[in-house]
Amino acid sequence: MGLNLSNFLVSKSKNKRMKEFQDLDHIDGLSISSVSANLYKNTRDDLVLFYFRDGANYASVYTQSKVISENIKWNLNQKPKKIHSLLVNARNANCFTGKQGYKSLEKIAEILCQKLNEKQIEDEENPKKIKPKEIIFGCTGTIGETFPEDKIRGKIPELIEKIKYTQNKYIWMKAALGIMTTDTQPKMAMEICQIGNTEIKIFGITKGSGMIQPNMATTLAYIFTDADLSNDILKKLLKKNIATTFNAITCDGDTSTNDMVCIFSTGKAKHSKITNINDDKIKDFEIALNNVLLNLAKRVVADGEGASKFITINVENCKNENDAKKIAFSIANSPLVKTAIAGEDPNWGRVVMAIGKSGVILNLDKLSIRFGNIYIVQNGKLFSNYSESEVSSYMKSDNIEINVNISNGSKKFTAYTMDLTKKYLEINSDYRS
Amino acid sequence: MGLNLSNFLVSKSKNKRMKEFQDLDHIDGLSISSVSANLYKNTRDDLVLFYFRDGANYASVYTQSKVISENIKWNLNQKPKKIHSLLVNARNANCFTGKQGYKSLEKIAEILCQKLNEKQIEDEENPKKIKPKEIIFGCTGTIGETFPEDKIRGKIPELIEKIKYTQNKYIWMKAALGIMTTDTQPKMAMEICQIGNTEIKIFGITKGSGMIQPNMATTLAYIFTDADLSNDILKKLLKKNIATTFNAITCDGDTSTNDMVCIFSTGKAKHSKITNINDDKIKDFEIALNNVLLNLAKRVVADGEGASKFITINVENCKNENDAKKIAFSIANSPLVKTAIAGEDPNWGRVVMAIGKSGVILNLDKLSIRFGNIYIVQNGKLFSNYSESEVSSYMKSDNIEINVNISNGSKKFTAYTMDLTKKYLEINSDYRS
Repeated sequence: MGLNLSNFLVSKSKNKRMKEFQDLDHIDGLSISSVSANLYKNTRDDLVLFYFRDGANYASVYTQSKVISENIKWNLNQKPKKIHSLLVNARNANCFTGKQGYKSLEKIAEILCQKLNEKQIEDEENPKKIKPKEIIFGCTGTIGETFPEDKIRGKIPELIEKIKYTQNKYIWMKAALGIMTTDTQPKMAMEICQIGNTEIKIFGITKGSGMIQPNMATTLAYIFTDADLSNDILKKLLKKNIATTFNAITCDGDTSTNDMVCIFSTGKAKHSKITNINDDKIKDFEIALNNVLLNLAKRVVADGEGASKFITINVENCKNENDAKKIAFSIANSPLVKTAIAGEDPNWGRVVMAIGKSGVILNLDKLSIRFGNIYIVQNGKLFSNYSESEVSSYMKSDNIEINVNISNGSKKFTAYTMDLTKKYLEINSDYRS
Repeated sequence: MGLNLSNFLVSKSKNKRMKEFQDLDHIDGLSISSVSANLYKNTRDDLVLFYFRDGANYASVYTQSKVISENIKWNLNQKPKKIHSLLVNARNANCFTGKQGYKSLEKIAEILCQKLNEKQIEDEENPKKIKPKEIIFGCTGTIGETFPEDKIRGKIPELIEKIKYTQNKYIWMKAALGIMTTDTQPKMAMEICQIGNTEIKIFGITKGSGMIQPNMATTLAYIFTDADLSNDILKKLLKKNIATTFNAITCDGDTSTNDMVCIFSTGKAKHSKITNINDDKIKDFEIALNNVLLNLAKRVVADGEGASKFITINVENCKNENDAKKIAFSIANSPLVKTAIAGEDPNWGRVVMAIGKSGVILNLDKLSIRFGNIYIVQNGKLFSNYSESEVSSYMKSDNIEINVNISNGSKKFTAYTMDLTKKYLEINSDYRS
């Protein structure tokens, strides 16, 4: 499974050096290593270490669920100035694992510190003393199973042994594979941009294909840059650009306990200091960051469980963005819309139903709906030249665009989702066995 | 398809004369007739007339969708004291059909009046002059297709010709079949109760199996009683009892443009006058009405598209009923919970996820979850004697009960839904062809 992305990953970036896909290489200041900790019966890597030898500035956004995993509690409790390591495991969400789950992280952080400090002494002229609070965790997988502390602790030495100071595309690919759960494809994206005259890299990896919904769901996404930006600037940029990217996707309306999106900046690229996100010098970086986030978010949807079609829902000319978002997600989360699209049925009546149930007050006489560029409803009436066969043939495409015009203002929102197929049910009726 | 209802249709009524199922017979003052208007290529009845020769008091509740069908607009525009006829068609929702859809109803109401008045002159000693405003419509089916006015108008004479003044179970069954769309079973329920010493009948039919969500969805439900109750009393009783019955079910989270639940009272049973819904004499009637509504609502869920299991979600001990309802529907509408149940997987982690995403603030350390009577989570921890094999074997039952205790108050809510199966996708990917 997994959709061909070439149709909808056209970057908005004007940067000529932007690459569509994906030979991520070296980012100065970051090392990555992956191993199998036997969480999946030794069939694959499932434990990935990101190591910042000189530390990294960072910012994170987390799930809005009222039930959060132990690793997110841990991350929220640490308030270091710099992060030295991010450790991610798949297979076990460390959620609803109680005190044991949290204590396991304490112990793992401790041994990881100890081993990293040994490495610092061995490798560095001025070794740093890394503290447990400078380590954060990503966990993803099943909720409520005992956290496999011993298996993970046992693999820390091997993880550290494997650290190389230069990264290439194979190392990135292994990392992207190592954090997957029900994903069918590793997901990476990159952009190269400039701050002033300095070339800057922004690389990212993500995972997630079920439980995807605004506020990120089972999504883990990690962005790495060699820019030199403060925690405060990173936080503002991330919050601003998450709204139209990871918070604009939905697969099944479910929200996970473990969602996290983080950005790390190693500060190795030397550029003029940025103290304000409205600084003109950061504009190119922000566009590139948005591209990386959107590219990754779209990859999550395209690999949504059982997806056979990628769906873009543009809702335009609303009174406010919130109305546009409500309508867009009401359509994107409607099982009846999603099954009709899976069946290539131009059943636009279900789009009307979903607009109605969104609760947004609207003047039906002004409503227009297009599938792609084909008018279906215009000014609240079936389009005079409506041709069902034309729309039917449009529905066969892998990439369906639903355009809704409310004609009631100037605000808009775009949501991304995929269709709902039998494959989704196969995957989710049988996740754990 | 269609689940065996015997397990969960145990009535709360203490009335010994209550019947589990379903030989609906005569209700004085009501006549029913059904024909095929060729809306489904003459394969079945699709047009059903309910005729109250002396009129009936009535009350209705309608969809909360912001897009409503033309027949609901019509019904809302009429404010007669009594209703003389309800005409229901399947196959076409008369929604998004614009002025044509509304005008069609005007014309149909006109001819139906004319023919009913001719019948009154023929049959009655004191014929009434029925007016178009005393007629209401139920429509259900596909949205956005031209309303088949001519086909329906052409069948009015035959409908009226077929009217018999005594009803039996075959006539009720034909009516229940005639209003079906994707339903696999006709749905009827009845109770017999008393007001004072007078025996009162409450009969009901319903349809609906997709687009089911709070506020009724593609549900049409019609309740008929020979009690003599005012429009005001009927309205209050219906609104009060819909909250825990038709507004407590969900199949797929989608909401229709056409939902309506109506109650009609012919007033033919002679009992002491009821002027207040708190009158003791109406208590037995109210219990019976709630039973009929709940019985019908459960039948809708049990016949939910593709349902293989009936799911009851009890959320208890919340701060307020709204919290309980939010949590119950968050679980009931979660595709991941519903697919796990379809797969007979005791994946209670997904129930925890759904509780978390409901947005209700709760103390996890007080949370308890039982599947049936089997404890899974107790005081926020996996139950000490948790046995996955015991829960696995429970999951094989047709009738799954999820009990969530928040231990934060005294309010509760029960929601009803069904599992999400491949069959749902087959039905909905291919609805129109």
